[in-house]
Formats: sequence, structure tokens, C-alpha cells
Amino acid sequence: MTVIAVAQLAPVIGDPEQNRRAAAGAVGEAVSAGAELVVLPELCDSGYVFDSEQEARRLATPADDSPTLRQWQDLAAAGRTVIIGGFCELGGDGRLYNSAALVGASGTLALYRKAHLWDREGLVFTPGGAAPPVVSLPFGRVAVVICYDLEFPEWARLPALDGADLIAAPVNWPAAPCPPGERPAEVVKAQADASVNGVFVAVADRCGTERGVDWIGGSVIIGPDGYPLAGPVLADRPAVLLADCDLARARDKRLNDHNDLLADRRPELYSPVTSGG
Amino acid sequence: MTVIAVAQLAPVIGDPEQNRRAAAGAVGEAVSAGAELVVLPELCDSGYVFDSEQEARRLATPADDSPTLRQWQDLAAAGRTVIIGGFCELGGDGRLYNSAALVGASGTLALYRKAHLWDREGLVFTPGGAAPPVVSLPFGRVAVVICYDLEFPEWARLPALDGADLIAAPVNWPAAPCPPGERPAEVVKAQADASVNGVFVAVADRCGTERGVDWIGGSVIIGPDGYPLAGPVLADRPAVLLADCDLARARDKRLNDHNDLLADRRPELYSPVTSGG
Repeated sequence: MTVIAVAQLAPVIGDPEQNRRAAAGAVGEAVSAGAELVVLPELCDSGYVFDSEQEARRLATPADDSPTLRQWQDLAAAGRTVIIGGFCELGGDGRLYNSAALVGASGTLALYRKAHLWDREGLVFTPGGAAPPVVSLPFGRVAVVICYDLEFPEWARLPALDGADLIAAPVNWPAAPCPPGERPAEVVKAQADASVNGVFVAVADRCGTERGVDWIGGSVIIGPDGYPLAGPVLADRPAVLLADCDLARARDKRLNDHNDLLADRRPELYSPVTSGG
Repeated sequence: MTVIAVAQLAPVIGDPEQNRRAAAGAVGEAVSAGAELVVLPELCDSGYVFDSEQEARRLATPADDSPTLRQWQDLAAAGRTVIIGGFCELGGDGRLYNSAALVGASGTLALYRKAHLWDREGLVFTPGGAAPPVVSLPFGRVAVVICYDLEFPEWARLPALDGADLIAAPVNWPAAPCPPGERPAEVVKAQADASVNGVFVAVADRCGTERGVDWIGGSVIIGPDGYPLAGPVLADRPAVLLADCDLARARDKRLNDHNDLLADRRPELYSPVTSGG
């Protein structure tokens, strides 16, 4: 069994030092509970609601020279854990990316650039052009996607087909109308991503009103049957969620003597899904 | 606005006449409430838990000479409605199919054969080899899938890309363990199908223990934002659900000034989804 943690944080726009302190506190709490993987929110060093591309650019750092990623490496080394979090990346090409890194004691093991940009992000960021990375860690195979990516079932399918046991998703889910008694559709879609692929999904959302934007605060750890193991929080407060996960469950896609989640697919019939829409 | 109905029924295995009478009663109730489309469960003429291929074969009828489809045509003509339901089909090739038909006053407008077979169905039925049909009706474009099909996001994506406003799904959802307070994952996945595609989803489930098998009884009508408009019933009783649906909502995939559910897809990056698994 592996303890997985997700940290719901309230980043402050334009104050990366404060944001890194908050992340360190949450990682410390997760590590104390034995977490071997800690997921932090999207853009958790910079904040999200940029006034301008220029503001985001001032807060962006290169993946190979980022105080945020150095901090995660230090925290990973000290806590014998792995950290996945979102940060504001200045690419080597001079462009800005809404990125996430998977960082261990030895450094950055994977970098991912969000492929499906939400709302005004497209005015600031360049979309990524590569599929979610899947990294083999001692306790299992872990993939990384970011926020709106989760709402494209093709994007969760890719790492599942690539053998991922767990999909980690740093998110910033803006609050949206939700009927009384209903779980927000963002959480429902993350549950479906888990269930249709038989993988764990670990979502770290943010909280804390930022420039008038509220958030779902929907951090959640979901099992491969689609049901939450911890969360969703659904409250505007920082939180560290923990779940003891048997990641090997994601390796067995059998549903009964006759069905297998992935082998039952009919890819030969799916071609319009990839034919340019 | 269009009134959509789904009927949760308790078919009796091996008694198609009784099952057709029950369907007629439910269609009558839906039509009285103004339903322009009525969805019936999977295999609603034959029952589901066959003892053998031979038993299913005795209950199967050809699509072009089926008392069930003739009845639906009569009901459609009398009620000025359209009926979608599941029936046990004897193919022209002598094989059995777990099929659904979309039937109007003029006859059968579409025939669909379930492409993803569940559990022991593969011992009885041949899987279909064609994508879900999408039929243009006066009130909107309607697609048909069956039960386990809904758990393959590719299979809901296909009709959405083909312009479907509503996906109708005759199902027989066997009961499975579900944590207290959770909505069954089958319903969650249907909600996600609706939300990620911006389409209505109308699910007609069955009830009534059959040869020891219980059912979710999860009939539900879901809006294009993923939230239920009626149901889920989640009880072992017949029911007719109605929802007044503005199907035109499914034509507008815009989420904000910058996002469009289908245009935001990155099909050029999805190719492993159709490359044979």
C-alpha cells in the first residue's frame, strides 16, 4: 500500500515565496503521515488570475532554473517522497507554459505542459503539444495532466493505455453553478476518468478567492472503481487529503470472467475520434 | 422544448407478450405527458438473464418481422411519438444481437447492435460492428447506444462529433457494490458522457430481480452540463421519468468566450486511442 496525498492550497497571486512556504507546510504534513507522493495545485507558485501576460511572465521561471522546482527537490529529498505540482514555466523558446513537474530527490523526472487551455489562459500560455508523461516510480506508474485536460476523456485514456496506475492532476477549478445536492461536474468527470480506465486519480485543487474568482475546492483522491477514497473537500479551506492506495489494483483491468476494461475497447471503430474532429 | 421520457420496467424473462404490455402502459403514460421520445430498457421484450443461447434464440425476432418493433410502430403512430428500446434480435445472418431500434410512426428509422458486450452476453450475442446511429428527428438529432457502451467514452464521443443532441441508452445495469452515499459509477459515467460532449443523455434501466440478479434501477435523464434533469430513480420499481429538454442547448458547445467543448479537442494528439490499444 502507498500513501497518496493531495494538498489544497490558497496561492496568493504574485507572491511565490509565500506560496512556496505554504506548499512546504502541506508537504511536511503529508510526509509526516507517510505520503510517498504529494500532489499540489495548478500554478501553485504564481497564482492563477493574471492581469496580463506581462504579469505572468514576471512570475515564470525556466524548468531547469526554477526556485519552485528546486524547493520541491529539497522537500522530496528530505521527506523521501515525490512531488507533483503546477508552476508557471518560462520555456526555452521564450513562451509561457502552464506546466507541471514530477520531482523526486534526484530532480525533475517529468515535465508536462497543459494541452487544453481554459478561458483566458490562451492569452498568456502556449498549449503543450505532448501527451501526458507516465513515470515509473518505485511504488507505481504515475501520469500527470492539468485541470481542463481531465475533461477530455481521450487525455485520460492515453496514459491508461500507456500503463499508468495513477493520474495526478494539479487543478484550479473555478466555481461554477451547480444544482443543490449535486457534486460538481468537474469531480464527476474525474471520477469517470478513473472508472473507465481503472486507474487512481489524485486531484489537488486550490481555494482562496483571487481577484474575484472563487474555486470549487474539490481536491479528491479517487479509486479505480470511480469512488472517492478521500474528499472531495468542496470547501474554501486549505486541506491535506491522504489515502492508502493499493496501486496494483490498477494493473488488473478484469471486471469479471469475460470483461477487461481496456481489452474490451473497439479501437478499430473509434477512428473519427482522432480524425481532426 | 421537447418532453423526453425514459421508462424503467421490470421485464419478465421469456414472456415477451407481458413485457410488451408493460411497455405499452409506460409509453401511454409518457405520451399522456406529452413525450415526443420514449426510451425503453435493453432487451425489454425478452428479459436479460438467459439460461442458454438456445433460450435467447427462442425469444429473438428479426428486425424486419418483430412483434416488438411492430408494437412500437403502432404506439408511435397512435401517440405521435418516437420509441427507442432494446430487443433480442435474430440477424439475417442467423446470429443473435443485443440490439436497439429507433421506431417512429413510419417504422424503424435506425437499428443499432451493441458493440461492447457485458459479461456472459458474449456467449449469446455477436457484437455489433458499426458506430451508434444518429437520426434527425423533427425535434433534434438522436443517437442510440446500449448499456456497457456508455462506459467507453469514445463511444459517446462518436455521435457527439456526428452532431447528436441526445444519446438514448437502453440499459440493464446489474447492481454492484457502491459505497454508502455514493451515486453508482454507471450513473456517474453517463453524467460524464453528457458533460464532456455537451449532449443530453437519456438512460432507461430495468428493475425486478431476474434469476437472482438485481439491478441499479438507475434510469435518468441528464442535461448537457452533466447534471440530472430527472432521476436517477435508484429504486427497484417501475417508473416513467419526464424532462422538458431544450435540445438546442446541445448545439452550442461554447463554454465561455475562449472555449468550445468539441473545438478544444486536440485530435492530432489522440492517435493512440484508435491504434489498436
